[in-house]
Amino acid sequence: MKHLLTRRTIRKYTQEPVSDELLNRLMNEAARTQTMGNLQLYSVVVTRSDDMKAKLAPAHFNQPMVKQAPVVLTICADFNRTSFWAKCRKAEPGYDNFLSFINAATDALLYTQTLCNLMDEEGLGYCYLGTTVYQPQQIIDVLQLPKLVMPVATLTVGWPDEEPALSDRLPLESFVHQETYQDYLGADIDTYYNYKENLEENKNFVKINNKETLAQVFTDIRYTRKDNEAMSTTLLQTLERQGFLPHTILLQKI
Amino acid sequence: MKHLLTRRTIRKYTQEPVSDELLNRLMNEAARTQTMGNLQLYSVVVTRSDDMKAKLAPAHFNQPMVKQAPVVLTICADFNRTSFWAKCRKAEPGYDNFLSFINAATDALLYTQTLCNLMDEEGLGYCYLGTTVYQPQQIIDVLQLPKLVMPVATLTVGWPDEEPALSDRLPLESFVHQETYQDYLGADIDTYYNYKENLEENKNFVKINNKETLAQVFTDIRYTRKDNEAMSTTLLQTLERQGFLPHTILLQKI
Repeated sequence: MKHLLTRRTIRKYTQEPVSDELLNRLMNEAARTQTMGNLQLYSVVVTRSDDMKAKLAPAHFNQPMVKQAPVVLTICADFNRTSFWAKCRKAEPGYDNFLSFINAATDALLYTQTLCNLMDEEGLGYCYLGTTVYQPQQIIDVLQLPKLVMPVATLTVGWPDEEPALSDRLPLESFVHQETYQDYLGADIDTYYNYKENLEENKNFVKINNKETLAQVFTDIRYTRKDNEAMSTTLLQTLERQGFLPHTILLQKI
Repeated sequence: MKHLLTRRTIRKYTQEPVSDELLNRLMNEAARTQTMGNLQLYSVVVTRSDDMKAKLAPAHFNQPMVKQAPVVLTICADFNRTSFWAKCRKAEPGYDNFLSFINAATDALLYTQTLCNLMDEEGLGYCYLGTTVYQPQQIIDVLQLPKLVMPVATLTVGWPDEEPALSDRLPLESFVHQETYQDYLGADIDTYYNYKENLEENKNFVKINNKETLAQVFTDIRYTRKDNEAMSTTLLQTLERQGFLPHTILLQKI
């Protein structure tokens, strides 16, 4: 796949527009991705208007690329369309549950990644915003998503106006297991994380954050227990509000 | 992307082996996919032994490709490795929660799809098994997955020994929305689903299942409310057992 080995996340874009023609072609081709029962349990909301970008930005912690990118795509797990199709065809849909959310989220994420791979090939730059699941209710309100539609990914898209350094990756042996999962020993961690921990940029990252180790930057600053637990509750509440987590299931567990 | 527009799910494979060299190269290249904080929150378990395939097969409803394929890949959301890294580095991980599962599952699914697209380019055939999240505990037991590791996708992989017809897709307008989500009217459904519903194979599918509409085949036979609800409970229980859903979060909601 052309460009895959040199792909980087792009956060700065030129003023050149991304045409509807190109974007539509790529969104259409990405739909060749496999999907559950060929139901295509996803939808994409395209944001081009400055007003809408400004409304989406706070949900993404006001990261500047949301307002700066020519296009913002919000990809959603969607059982609304399929359920309505069923209702129009004398069928009773039963997709207001957690498994159906996971199925639709899977379809949506696989679709998203093929779209990313296609954009790489075209030389388009994009940034995948993981913030989508942090404050999903704001996105739902702005994009007017009905029940059984849940945002799972956001891409800011445009022509690259930067060429950041390639980011490092762990060695293959660190994440591939043969036949059964071989749990890690301290020595494995030393081997697998040695390169990452000794990169100048990561050493500097530790220093400017006044931490002792790189891992502490993640646990104490970037992805803390407190934030994760608060956002877990919010996410479950939003799934319930969107109709994917009936109260009965939660009650059953007590 | 070469072959994307003609990709099909492949369920029958030749006897030709898939070399470790090729598979490792593709699994390594797929790791260029973007990942949360560059943490690579996934792992892959490679199954080649007949004995292990036979043990995995029941979790996938004994679909024949599990035993027939030269390779089965189980891709997992993995916060175990990252958490252990933190513990080895004087850091306190806080990833035993639902948000962290969603973050890791996202990493795992994006990785999976780049791998699929790479396999397409090599001419390798694969089948994505959605059954992975239906009976995950069986897979966890067979592959000996520790806490904070959860299987989210399975691929059976081999050289194609069939060329099935291309499956249909909905038109772009049916799943792309401009600026805000435009909910569907009955007339939209008629337009968007007309082609699919009138395909000979789908008409035949309705007939052999003794149903009145194609949608009923999905709601009454393939993906029923009863199954979805039962498997939702199982999935939540498994997430709890793997450490991604502390009891306290569920209690808070009552």
